Amino acid sequence: MKINGNFDNMVPSYLFAEIAKRVNQYTQSNPDKDVIRLGIGDVTLPLAPVVVDAMIKGAEELGKKESFKGYPDYEGYAFLREAISNYYRGHGVTVDAHEIFVSDGAKSDCGNIGDIFAMDNTVLVTDPVYPVYVDTNLMAGRRIIYADSNEANGFSAMPDENQQADIIYLCSPNNPTGSVYTREQLKKWVDYANKQDAVILFDAAYEAFITEDLPRSIFEIEGARTCAIEFCSLSKTAGFTGTRCGYTIIPKELERDGKNLHKLWYRRQATKFNGVSWPVQCGAAAVFTEQGQKEIKENIVYYQANARIIASALEDLGIWYTGGTNSPYIWLKCPNGMKSWEFFDLLLTKANVVGTPGAGFGKNGEGYFRLTAFGDKAGTEEAVARIKNVLK
Amino acid sequence: MKINGNFDNMVPSYLFAEIAKRVNQYTQSNPDKDVIRLGIGDVTLPLAPVVVDAMIKGAEELGKKESFKGYPDYEGYAFLREAISNYYRGHGVTVDAHEIFVSDGAKSDCGNIGDIFAMDNTVLVTDPVYPVYVDTNLMAGRRIIYADSNEANGFSAMPDENQQADIIYLCSPNNPTGSVYTREQLKKWVDYANKQDAVILFDAAYEAFITEDLPRSIFEIEGARTCAIEFCSLSKTAGFTGTRCGYTIIPKELERDGKNLHKLWYRRQATKFNGVSWPVQCGAAAVFTEQGQKEIKENIVYYQANARIIASALEDLGIWYTGGTNSPYIWLKCPNGMKSWEFFDLLLTKANVVGTPGAGFGKNGEGYFRLTAFGDKAGTEEAVARIKNVLK
Repeated sequence: MKINGNFDNMVPSYLFAEIAKRVNQYTQSNPDKDVIRLGIGDVTLPLAPVVVDAMIKGAEELGKKESFKGYPDYEGYAFLREAISNYYRGHGVTVDAHEIFVSDGAKSDCGNIGDIFAMDNTVLVTDPVYPVYVDTNLMAGRRIIYADSNEANGFSAMPDENQQADIIYLCSPNNPTGSVYTREQLKKWVDYANKQDAVILFDAAYEAFITEDLPRSIFEIEGARTCAIEFCSLSKTAGFTGTRCGYTIIPKELERDGKNLHKLWYRRQATKFNGVSWPVQCGAAAVFTEQGQKEIKENIVYYQANARIIASALEDLGIWYTGGTNSPYIWLKCPNGMKSWEFFDLLLTKANVVGTPGAGFGKNGEGYFRLTAFGDKAGTEEAVARIKNVLK
Repeated sequence: MKINGNFDNMVPSYLFAEIAKRVNQYTQSNPDKDVIRLGIGDVTLPLAPVVVDAMIKGAEELGKKESFKGYPDYEGYAFLREAISNYYRGHGVTVDAHEIFVSDGAKSDCGNIGDIFAMDNTVLVTDPVYPVYVDTNLMAGRRIIYADSNEANGFSAMPDENQQADIIYLCSPNNPTGSVYTREQLKKWVDYANKQDAVILFDAAYEAFITEDLPRSIFEIEGARTCAIEFCSLSKTAGFTGTRCGYTIIPKELERDGKNLHKLWYRRQATKFNGVSWPVQCGAAAVFTEQGQKEIKENIVYYQANARIIASALEDLGIWYTGGTNSPYIWLKCPNGMKSWEFFDLLLTKANVVGTPGAGFGKNGEGYFRLTAFGDKAGTEEAVARIKNVLK
């Protein structure tokens, strides 16, 4: 019996588990302290009423024989896939309902998608990076290479024609940096991927936070349908972090190595997944109704106001930052040349504010720090006041 | 870019997807026919009222700021893990709540568990076998060997000391054959695994159907804590096929190759999974309350009566079968020497009854057929009458 030795190549603890551990240790030693969490990027506003109503109706239906639902379709119910397809159409993007796979979240899919690719592909990620892309591929034993995001390129890494890659993870709006690719930039990635015979795995989990004229889907870009898979999630769009629903889009014509990727993913999901809970799919479909879109927009606007509160404080303090305008994340440079975890411990112990150390996202994150706009307004204002007090 | 070539080693279509395809083709050509489905093993009775109430309360809580729930614990909420631990205690089995991982279903876990093991382990499955064990390991590229279940051993394969295995899948009560291992038989498997340094992956998804004095958990067996992982599900226990909740138990002391398997699985789940929906976990916990146990028992008794209806008809027809007493599955020998898919097509087209061809579960399944007790009573009676009419 041999264990998967690739686990030894991963850092011992998943980043957010490590943060939770440090925070728990602090709060247990200091039970009187009121700690404000602007770290993990979890939402705080309740689900939209129309979503709750749909979930209640769904649960009630499970309690009656005539409306009971057993095994769902592996790829999600047609009514939800149609609703997502319509949502894309509203942004001018054509995605057929049959190209959509509903899942329990984009995180699961971003990792599980690796099942359809061979182990000896080279994975390209931008650094800093959402740890899931790296850890799931380290676990599988794949070679990982990095494209640098840094202050010089506005934390938007671009492809290097001399670098050979097979699988490319892009996240825009970016987690953790809040940067967003323009159409011109994404077109360069798409052209690079098609030329290299690579596949782009595009994480659009934060698309609902885009306020300016920037691409919300990679399928806005010409050529993307022959090189890209898109992941999206209702976690940040509609507060589904605890409700769990996301989706993955694989164009019907996407082929590599003589195989159809849509069919391979269907086979993978039919074999290792059994679909999403009925009431959750009901709630998810409600997100895409006219009333649902109105209600979730109110929450997004609330979080965007928090982002402005944080941004404004950083400007007052003269701290460099990016993100916040088209993203719930603000990515700042730790003051006084501090390292990321040093700044984390300072904020935790002196301001009782939890953020996310940039170093946890890769080498280019060292010396940077992520704050999220997902707190409540009063908490965000209080956190900002405490940070100002500590740093002034 | 290379695709995972192991997909070529799998049969082109997941068994139940193939059945669905054939049934859809038939019903589209014969829209007037009333097809009765005793095939896929999906339940038909509604969720217990106490479960529905808990899910509704959970959904309502998501709609209020003060009770909103964001990201769940990767391993499930403590209250649910405690409830499962108590359930085991009720059967005389000690499983600590910290040893339990809640998931979206046993199928996902049975496949995903492979992530913690190296690729060059040998996987032993009993044949006939639930296709997920085979397909997920073929997908990963592992070598698979078989232990024969057949009429001679009551479709309960036993270990062969001369056969070297690293990962052993056991399912008891068995899907598809309905056979159940005795304590003495399981003890032989446990001793074999400990001696071989192997790990048993024990699928207990049908434990709630045991009526006789037979083991409901592998952890009833001395020595199991140093060699076994148990998967269980609420799909058949409480009608959760469309609600999606299961759990996996990994003893804290289980080690192989110098690594702690519990810690590896936690790392896997923290990296590739984000927990189970809040209302679903609320509903699952309600299953384990006194009222929940009473209500789900009524459904199980209903299905057990269906099993007796099927068994009785097979006895009338003089057809050999096993299962049905401690299992929702009845495993029968196709009459007149028919092959499995031949009998499938006969029942579909002549009796308009859908069953599952034994050949879909492995070579020892050829010439056998699975019927399930999960239909409604009237449908089961009607199906049995039609089968009798065709075969008489």
